[in-house]
Amino acid sequence: QRTGYPETVFGEGKTAEQITAIIEKFRENEQVVLCTRISPAKAQSVSQKIAQTKYYRTARCLVVGSPMTPPSDSYIAIVSAGTSDIPITEEATVTAETFGNRVERVYDVGVAGIHRLFEHLDVIRGAKVVIVAAGMDGALASVVGGLVASPVIALPTSIGYGSSFNGLSALLTMLNSCAEGVTVVNIDNGFGAAYSASLINHM
Amino acid sequence: QRTGYPETVFGEGKTAEQITAIIEKFRENEQVVLCTRISPAKAQSVSQKIAQTKYYRTARCLVVGSPMTPPSDSYIAIVSAGTSDIPITEEATVTAETFGNRVERVYDVGVAGIHRLFEHLDVIRGAKVVIVAAGMDGALASVVGGLVASPVIALPTSIGYGSSFNGLSALLTMLNSCAEGVTVVNIDNGFGAAYSASLINHM
Amino acid sequence: QRTGYPETVFGEGKTAEQITAIIEKFRENEQVVLCTRISPAKAQSVSQKIAQTKYYRTARCLVVGSPMTPPSDSYIAIVSAGTSDIPITEEATVTAETFGNRVERVYDVGVAGIHRLFEHLDVIRGAKVVIVAAGMDGALASVVGGLVASPVIALPTSIGYGSSFNGLSALLTMLNSCAEGVTVVNIDNGFGAAYSASLINHM
Amino acid sequence: QRTGYPETVFGEGKTAEQITAIIEKFRENEQVVLCTRISPAKAQSVSQKIAQTKYYRTARCLVVGSPMTPPSDSYIAIVSAGTSDIPITEEATVTAETFGNRVERVYDVGVAGIHRLFEHLDVIRGAKVVIVAAGMDGALASVVGGLVASPVIALPTSIGYGSSFNGLSALLTMLNSCAEGVTVVNIDNGFGAAYSASLINHM
Amino acid sequence: QRTGYPETVFGEGKTAEQITAIIEKFRENEQVVLCTRISPAKAQSVSQKIAQTKYYRTARCLVVGSPMTPPSDSYIAIVSAGTSDIPITEEATVTAETFGNRVERVYDVGVAGIHRLFEHLDVIRGAKVVIVAAGMDGALASVVGGLVASPVIALPTSIGYGSSFNGLSALLTMLNSCAEGVTVVNIDNGFGAAYSASLINHM
Amino acid sequence: QRTGYPETVFGEGKTAEQITAIIEKFRENEQVVLCTRISPAKAQSVSQKIAQTKYYRTARCLVVGSPMTPPSDSYIAIVSAGTSDIPITEEATVTAETFGNRVERVYDVGVAGIHRLFEHLDVIRGAKVVIVAAGMDGALASVVGGLVASPVIALPTSIGYGSSFNGLSALLTMLNSCAEGVTVVNIDNGFGAAYSASLINHM
Amino acid sequence: QRTGYPETVFGEGKTAEQITAIIEKFRENEQVVLCTRISPAKAQSVSQKIAQTKYYRTARCLVVGSPMTPPSDSYIAIVSAGTSDIPITEEATVTAETFGNRVERVYDVGVAGIHRLFEHLDVIRGAKVVIVAAGMDGALASVVGGLVASPVIALPTSIGYGSSFNGLSALLTMLNSCAEGVTVVNIDNGFGAAYSASLINHM
Amino acid sequence: QRTGYPETVFGEGKTAEQITAIIEKFRENEQVVLCTRISPAKAQSVSQKIAQTKYYRTARCLVVGSPMTPPSDSYIAIVSAGTSDIPITEEATVTAETFGNRVERVYDVGVAGIHRLFEHLDVIRGAKVVIVAAGMDGALASVVGGLVASPVIALPTSIGYGSSFNGLSALLTMLNSCAEGVTVVNIDNGFGAAYSASLINHM
Ligand SMILES: Nc1ncnc2c1ncn2[C@@H]1O[C@H](COP(=O)(O)O)[C@@H](O)[C@H]1O
Ligand SMILES: Nc1ncnc2c1ncn2[C@@H]1O[C@H](COP(=O)(O)O)[C@@H](O)[C@H]1O
Ligand SMILES: Nc1ncnc2c1ncn2[C@@H]1O[C@H](COP(=O)(O)O)[C@@H](O)[C@H]1O
Ligand SMILES: Nc1ncnc2c1ncn2[C@@H]1O[C@H](COP(=O)(O)O)[C@@H](O)[C@H]1O
Ligand SMILES: [Mg+2]
Ligand SMILES: [Mg+2]
Ligand SMILES: [Mg+2]
Ligand SMILES: [Mg+2]
Ligand SMILES: [Mg+2]
Ligand SMILES: [Mg+2]
Ligand SMILES: [Mg+2]
Ligand SMILES: [Mg+2]
Repeated sequence: QRTGYPETVFGEGKTAEQITAIIEKFRENEQVVLCTRISPAKAQSVSQKIAQTKYYRTARCLVVGSPMTPPSDSYIAIVSAGTSDIPITEEATVTAETFGNRVERVYDVGVAGIHRLFEHLDVIRGAKVVIVAAGMDGALASVVGGLVASPVIALPTSIGYGSSFNGLSALLTMLNSCAEGVTVVNIDNGFGAAYSASLINHM
Repeated sequence: QRTGYPETVFGEGKTAEQITAIIEKFRENEQVVLCTRISPAKAQSVSQKIAQTKYYRTARCLVVGSPMTPPSDSYIAIVSAGTSDIPITEEATVTAETFGNRVERVYDVGVAGIHRLFEHLDVIRGAKVVIVAAGMDGALASVVGGLVASPVIALPTSIGYGSSFNGLSALLTMLNSCAEGVTVVNIDNGFGAAYSASLINHM
Repeated sequence: QRTGYPETVFGEGKTAEQITAIIEKFRENEQVVLCTRISPAKAQSVSQKIAQTKYYRTARCLVVGSPMTPPSDSYIAIVSAGTSDIPITEEATVTAETFGNRVERVYDVGVAGIHRLFEHLDVIRGAKVVIVAAGMDGALASVVGGLVASPVIALPTSIGYGSSFNGLSALLTMLNSCAEGVTVVNIDNGFGAAYSASLINHM
Repeated sequence: QRTGYPETVFGEGKTAEQITAIIEKFRENEQVVLCTRISPAKAQSVSQKIAQTKYYRTARCLVVGSPMTPPSDSYIAIVSAGTSDIPITEEATVTAETFGNRVERVYDVGVAGIHRLFEHLDVIRGAKVVIVAAGMDGALASVVGGLVASPVIALPTSIGYGSSFNGLSALLTMLNSCAEGVTVVNIDNGFGAAYSASLINHM
Repeated sequence: QRTGYPETVFGEGKTAEQITAIIEKFRENEQVVLCTRISPAKAQSVSQKIAQTKYYRTARCLVVGSPMTPPSDSYIAIVSAGTSDIPITEEATVTAETFGNRVERVYDVGVAGIHRLFEHLDVIRGAKVVIVAAGMDGALASVVGGLVASPVIALPTSIGYGSSFNGLSALLTMLNSCAEGVTVVNIDNGFGAAYSASLINHM
Repeated sequence: QRTGYPETVFGEGKTAEQITAIIEKFRENEQVVLCTRISPAKAQSVSQKIAQTKYYRTARCLVVGSPMTPPSDSYIAIVSAGTSDIPITEEATVTAETFGNRVERVYDVGVAGIHRLFEHLDVIRGAKVVIVAAGMDGALASVVGGLVASPVIALPTSIGYGSSFNGLSALLTMLNSCAEGVTVVNIDNGFGAAYSASLINHM
Repeated sequence: QRTGYPETVFGEGKTAEQITAIIEKFRENEQVVLCTRISPAKAQSVSQKIAQTKYYRTARCLVVGSPMTPPSDSYIAIVSAGTSDIPITEEATVTAETFGNRVERVYDVGVAGIHRLFEHLDVIRGAKVVIVAAGMDGALASVVGGLVASPVIALPTSIGYGSSFNGLSALLTMLNSCAEGVTVVNIDNGFGAAYSASLINHM
Repeated sequence: QRTGYPETVFGEGKTAEQITAIIEKFRENEQVVLCTRISPAKAQSVSQKIAQTKYYRTARCLVVGSPMTPPSDSYIAIVSAGTSDIPITEEATVTAETFGNRVERVYDVGVAGIHRLFEHLDVIRGAKVVIVAAGMDGALASVVGGLVASPVIALPTSIGYGSSFNGLSALLTMLNSCAEGVTVVNIDNGFGAAYSASLINHM
């Protein structure tokens, strides 16, 4: 692994002890560590044994050490449909920042009120790569994909009920996007969307 | 059934003889008859025995007798995403016209090139009720739903491939529309969308 | 948005603080606000900071301000199959009333005892638009659709077990309704059914 | 196997030669043989080598030998929603008759025009057991189940399109029937419905 | 409804108060009442207000009044694959007995140890109608169906994990049974299986 | 790869030219080659350019060179439910024989007539490993699994209609087998079942 | 059952009393008993009444009596993708050891860091049979299948989120493995994988 | 649209006349046009009316005009599992080349013979972005994702049978990839994978 490059730990289903042990091993090389999907209680327990931690409550992420320095001339736009998507988009944001990226948040601009999206079109179009998060109808990814020339990473969320089938509806919509330049990650995978976006933003 | 009101025949899986017999019975009361999902060959065969028929090739519809007279002051807008949706939207259009409605077609305005949709916003907003047909991502229904105040009937089509699963993707998107005022009919059910729209347009 | 027209908040997954803030912003224009899917506890907490609230426990809805005045000559019939559907139909009822509609409830008239449905046929046929809620077999929507000439909005509910698959069975039944004039909303979407019905009832 | 009791051959995917061979073996004991799902061409080929055959074109069934004698005092009612269901209901009818049952056909009485069903209620209620065939919404089974006191065998058909998913919609509806006394067979399994009905009718 | 014939209440999702009220109404005609899917706590609460109740803990059923008298010369066999199916088969047993049927239980005879099934073949073959309950592979219904000449009602249970998908695996197996004379009810629908069996057993 | 060990070619979707080229390359080392899923026409075309071919029509397999010599003291039993499964079981048989195994066929012993299975129990129990092929209810795998002590490889076939969903029903049944010692391969994967069985039979 | 051969109890959904009773009966013949899917609390309760128990907390297994003696010259390799799979692989390990097998654990060698897998290739290739457990993409089974000549039993786990659909993704991947010699068990069925592996390892 | 930038036409479901008309309109600005999913017959018909066409038979693509000039220092690697994937990967290759990219093909390196993949690791690692196409188990995307530091676009193909469910298996595997930096497009969407890859390769 490239020196200084962050290591990641998927916190779900691991005990605080397991997480602490993994982080300690990574920290021997003074590497930045990002732990995702970690509860407040576990994060607190880990922070008592590890120095330099910062916990992001909404994102449910724990960052150990200093995030990488972002390139000065480009950024990732993270666009989302509703306020319920925020935990997922914040996972994406913390991931992106830890891996050295400037992030512009454009939240709550779902297609039901498309004028709000247009108000932020400049910042979205200015991004080197765009992440679009949406649950329910997932329509936002296609709309944004049609408006920008940069690559779009579509991030379906499990927000919704009934026939949203925990994100399946948004996932299928995004995979079938009529707009060019849209690729898709797993439901609620804010980390993965940001990781791929970061690779592109560093080009 | 109200006098003069059209009767409909679902042509799929019926022989020309069966269709002819059903139409003849309806025509005794001089009622208009709409036969949907009928192939050119069957339509020709029926037309040799029944007077006053008109066949709509793209819509695969046969109309017998004169369509009802539309109200002068209102219309149905039929909006569709791509050219492949046309057979379905034409089924809707022929149905709507047979049941006495003026139709404004706004075709090929999918969200991948959303500016085309905005060019036609006035005609869409002017409609008493709007049908939105789309396959693949089905995102158009949510976008239109957010832009108009009138009821929107979403019509998923089976256009697409792979994970569109023959219209399932569009259907789910439309059922999960974030915009208010959107209801949904079965995949490729142009007839049903137009029938409901007609009920509303006559209010 | 048209002045005086209600604004809605989807309460699920929002904190009492978030809901309070959104309502306060809407109330600056003295607009009526409808908050759906809000628990008793959250509703109480919001009501301590906001004036003129009324909480509907079964519907899980909080209304702030005075509902709009309904048209005097028409109403929405809300028909449901069983008592378990009541939380969903009450969400529809409260929504419809808040948006200025008279509602006639025809509950517990499922097709297993179809005579009960016929006892109420006059009130159902007298409605300008009918909402039909049912879980399990969802058959009621087709039956009602065949009996009335007005538009029917089918509202599948998640009531049932086993192969009802949380409302999927009722949803599919309703989408495949053999009766004309039936359109469908998402599983358990009482709000959406009532919103669309309200648009039609105000025509 | 009880003497004289019919043997059955599932014709689909078997060659005329294979079918002939199986029938010849069964005929050694002079048993009646019912072959289902056999095409006209194969049936003709088989009939050239086997005596006493009768082919039912709509049902796609070939009967060899004389059907069993039905009990004089009871019958099976076979009720169906639409004309497209006829090939399936005829498979049921031929099966029932071959196994020695009187059948009363009540076809084309789907719930979209429920008054037609009521016109035939006496004959349906008079049956010892009722088969109800329907595709699309499958709602007829629940309605009939609620109207009769005898056992109902629900027979979902693959008639429909879009989200009927080749009979899945009707199958789920019927499994979730709110009416008591309804059991279900596989999609398009007219043979199976009639076989079970025959067992009951002979009690 | 025929006098003395039991009425049934589906207890799930109803409060003790609602259940009590419904039972009281039915008891005015001194009818037997069967309440299924009722928890011990609710049953106790109901029993404090209603006389002549008997609660069946495993079956989660409450019976009010005296079960009907069974015919002396016939019985229903209820066959099940494993001990985990017992709550469902007991719901079937209590239902059958309340509706006036003698029941022979043949539990825990799944196909993995098929010799156990053969030990009880006489009692199974002696029944007028057989209910076969199984989860997981659901194979028992086909095996029993092949061994008996009487009608078999297959009752899939939600027992299992992973790709049993909460009973879907057993349901599909049973619908596709290669044995003749098998019909199917909804997953975990012990009541429905017994109701239909009772209709047959009284013939 | 071990010398003399057969190479395999999956013929579906390859042209006769492509298949010929691949076989020629393998034959340079004089290795036996098994080509599965190859049509009669393609097989004939390949056989005109390659020596020592033998085509198995039912199995749709082409074998080039001499099958390996089987161990003298053990064999694979291939058990199947119905005659329609034969193309799949023959693919398994040809594969097994080409890889050097003696095969005992026990065909047409489905659970609907379980006595036929018991007639062949000795030959099944004598096998070192058993392949069980079945479509529709797939129940045979569980029954055989419960009767033998050797490993069972369950081979679901796509035989059936309606809710068999092209083999899904049999696949799920087999994955949920209550019997110990059963593992599963893909639907219609006769080759794969025989390959794994061959590995075990050579131990 | 062969003397001394372990009996197994599936603990899920059974009470401590039921489990104790079953074990006591088996212990009369001094047979080893393996109880899987048993919680710590139940295990403790059982251990107070039964002698010679040993509880494996991670595997959630209780073993009563002494495991069988393994063959000296062969072993089962149990390979897994991530640390979250450990509860499932430990169920497999305890099962294998109880049934008299030496197990080599090769954990946490998922394909995302494939070099770790290659470090352990010797121990994997040395096994008589290999179990490969993985959730999420389930890709490890295909990779290992391509690297070893021995039979591979693929064990999909429910680890993952979103479109992993509780193990469905891994299950499908494994059923469609491009590598030869791979068979599959149910999701999370560590016991079943080990049971089949044990049969093979004892050949 | 940027001058000189290719326009694309999705050929499926369009007549030769429709395609010709669309191309003619685009060619007025002398823009390059890529038509995908066009049959040989239609392509020939179009080529008779349009100049400068080149048809790619395997890719089923027609290119009109000269492809854009690729950047000299970077390329896209297109990696695929089997020969059956070639029509899809060639659609990707032709698309990428038309949009001005150098492509390195690394075909037929599926994980069942992973050594072949390693032979080409340098060319894969040297790419600025990698497309990985695979059907059946789809495992190749995870393996490649774990071996390269550049972005990976996973392209599931519909190759397979049985439980591959026309590409669903590969799609789910890829969405659940354990490797970082993998995003996914629709099943068989070679065009879409190449379009997104091209955006990245031009950075
Ligand atoms: N929130 C997340 N969602 C999906 N994958 C993640 C997430 N966080 C970390 N990962 C992945 O999980 C891997 C670490 O898994 P583990 O070794 O179980 O901690 C990392 O290399 C990432 O690829
Ligand atoms: N119960 C409900 N079900 C579905 N949609 C709802 C419901 N209540 C409100 N909505 C919709 O949710 C929007 C508000 O969402 P939000 O901005 O998240 O509060 C409203 O404009 C409605 O379209
Ligand atoms: N149309 C049908 N649908 C389902 N099962 C049938 C049908 N016709 C016959 N069968 C069953 O198939 C068995 C005969 O199958 P076979 O031995 O393949 O001819 C009979 O015993 C019946 O149980
Ligand atoms: N093979 C393909 N798969 C998916 N989308 C395609 C393909 N080829 C072209 N497209 C898309 O289809 C659009 C053209 O569609 P149309 O206007 O129907 O010709 C293009 O802008 C592309 O986004
Ligand atoms: Mg774009
Ligand atoms: Mg709107
Ligand atoms: Mg109507
Ligand atoms: Mg009834
Ligand atoms: Mg039988
Ligand atoms: Mg066994
Ligand atoms: Mg191998
Ligand atoms: Mg990588």
